[in-house]
Amino acid sequence: MTRPNRQILLAEIPQGRLEERHFRAVDGEIGEPSPGEVLCRTILLSIDPANRAWMRGRTYRSQLNAGEVMAGFTLAEVVAENGADIPIGTVVAADNGWQQYAIHRAKRVRPIQVHAALTHHMSVLGVTGLTAYFGLLNIGVPKEGETVAVSAAAGATGNVVGQIARIKGCRVVGITGSDEKNAMLQRDLGFDETVNYKSESIRDELRDACPDGIDVYFDNVGGTLLDTVLPRMNMHGRVVCCGSVSQYDVEGRPVGSALVPGIVIVNRLRLEGFIVNDFENRFGEAETQLAEWVKSGQLKVLEEVLDGLDSAPGALVGLLAGANTGKRMVRVAPDP
Amino acid sequence: MTRPNRQILLAEIPQGRLEERHFRAVDGEIGEPSPGEVLCRTILLSIDPANRAWMRGRTYRSQLNAGEVMAGFTLAEVVAENGADIPIGTVVAADNGWQQYAIHRAKRVRPIQVHAALTHHMSVLGVTGLTAYFGLLNIGVPKEGETVAVSAAAGATGNVVGQIARIKGCRVVGITGSDEKNAMLQRDLGFDETVNYKSESIRDELRDACPDGIDVYFDNVGGTLLDTVLPRMNMHGRVVCCGSVSQYDVEGRPVGSALVPGIVIVNRLRLEGFIVNDFENRFGEAETQLAEWVKSGQLKVLEEVLDGLDSAPGALVGLLAGANTGKRMVRVAPDP
Repeated sequence: MTRPNRQILLAEIPQGRLEERHFRAVDGEIGEPSPGEVLCRTILLSIDPANRAWMRGRTYRSQLNAGEVMAGFTLAEVVAENGADIPIGTVVAADNGWQQYAIHRAKRVRPIQVHAALTHHMSVLGVTGLTAYFGLLNIGVPKEGETVAVSAAAGATGNVVGQIARIKGCRVVGITGSDEKNAMLQRDLGFDETVNYKSESIRDELRDACPDGIDVYFDNVGGTLLDTVLPRMNMHGRVVCCGSVSQYDVEGRPVGSALVPGIVIVNRLRLEGFIVNDFENRFGEAETQLAEWVKSGQLKVLEEVLDGLDSAPGALVGLLAGANTGKRMVRVAPDP
Repeated sequence: MTRPNRQILLAEIPQGRLEERHFRAVDGEIGEPSPGEVLCRTILLSIDPANRAWMRGRTYRSQLNAGEVMAGFTLAEVVAENGADIPIGTVVAADNGWQQYAIHRAKRVRPIQVHAALTHHMSVLGVTGLTAYFGLLNIGVPKEGETVAVSAAAGATGNVVGQIARIKGCRVVGITGSDEKNAMLQRDLGFDETVNYKSESIRDELRDACPDGIDVYFDNVGGTLLDTVLPRMNMHGRVVCCGSVSQYDVEGRPVGSALVPGIVIVNRLRLEGFIVNDFENRFGEAETQLAEWVKSGQLKVLEEVLDGLDSAPGALVGLLAGANTGKRMVRVAPDP
């Protein structure tokens, strides 16, 4: 048996800014799983800044090539299996990519215990929530009363970072490129202060927002903003290097930091990168804690769900331009 | 009573490369210590890359100003005291600066237990040896069998870093700007490999010298060399940010790292700055260990002692051009 399988290909590697014309939809079909494999139907497709980074070169995964199905993280339902020991109907986390169906070896998918809205398993209980949790608590290690600044603060990871920091008793300063997002962060999510990085007086505003300096900077952005923040860091401050989205959707050599390593030495800073998968054996503990905070109302869930596979290219282009608030995802099929 | 006190002033803040003309010698005199103070005669004056950094702006000390006595770390002898509870004849570590005598409050000097040649207390048992010890072992945390790379490897700190790494069972790769220095490091100090950063094929040579990648990079240099080394770092590699001497003696905005934070995220690197004073309460333990290694012949002492206070400006200008091998210092007075 075969099924129709709509796919969106990365038609061309973008030079400079990503546009919808760099993608192309095709209607293919998909067959049955071979022994040890599962056939998974895409339910929710995650739209992430990292999608763009994968087009630039090798990261923690190999570089994407023109003509391939666009890569993407998904929540999917097992609809057929072949001696794979995963029941049909199981919801799994899988790298289906931008298509309706994909076949994987069983060990390449991770079954999910669904105990909340499925969208929450992609946002606050999913990769971005776990990234916020482990990055802030294990790399940033904020203490009660310290100041935590976070860039892309209204984004999928940033908003959770800020909320966890607030729960832990920190002063929380959000940085975004939008006054509307900033107002929302202070009004709805309990951020203490916010700064718009597009402001010409960003340096002064950041100083005013952080009268006691910054102890932890959760950096989703990299680029020139990093050098704006570094001089405000306190002695022995920690920079959680999570993303550099300012550098993903541009042409040529990235803008780095002119202050590294100079200011890192003088102020005894620590800059540390991580990938959430490094903490995979502790995902259960983190998910339980995050779900408790959501249930108690301490942690608000910020999501945007766009409809239909064909909306994915526009969703990613918009995300890279800063259009999203919270975790952006595409619904490809209804919940099972 | 007053004593003649020759001083070397920083006559002018250099724009661009430091030259001897930026200094001016004056013959002054110095009086007696006030209550609680000691009068210290400079014996050995330390010549350090940091001397140049102090002219550029605030670091861990306030910026130097034109017309002031040039700042510098010294070993000195207490020759008069006024109820300061430090016996005359005591050798102390003190910030005398570039002059024959200075007066300090007693708590601003640190008595030294002299148990080796006094020059050793300025090199391997002094600030640079302690910097190598704590930076490598506490920030870099190398494991036996790992690869440790060090820049300015023939310098005061770098040569000790490499030798300690070798003692700890690591593969040691030194980076300098001189084939002669590199040959000496391999022949006399047991470095496994060396690379000349001035070579046009530095990237290939570094790859060949580090077939298993680099686990710890002890960075004394910063600048473009940092971006040459970072792509060779292994997953979870550590960069000890100790100095950025390539950036001290140049005009204008420093060259930073184009790869920060991108590669820091992808390869889960940690960059961490430190100042040796952060470990002050453990100096005794470290000095004991370093002295044992010297005594057993495992740790060779590399020193250059120039003669007379007036040689200090040339000594510093030369140091910044890479002329030194090992710890450079100026003898201002004979040992007590």
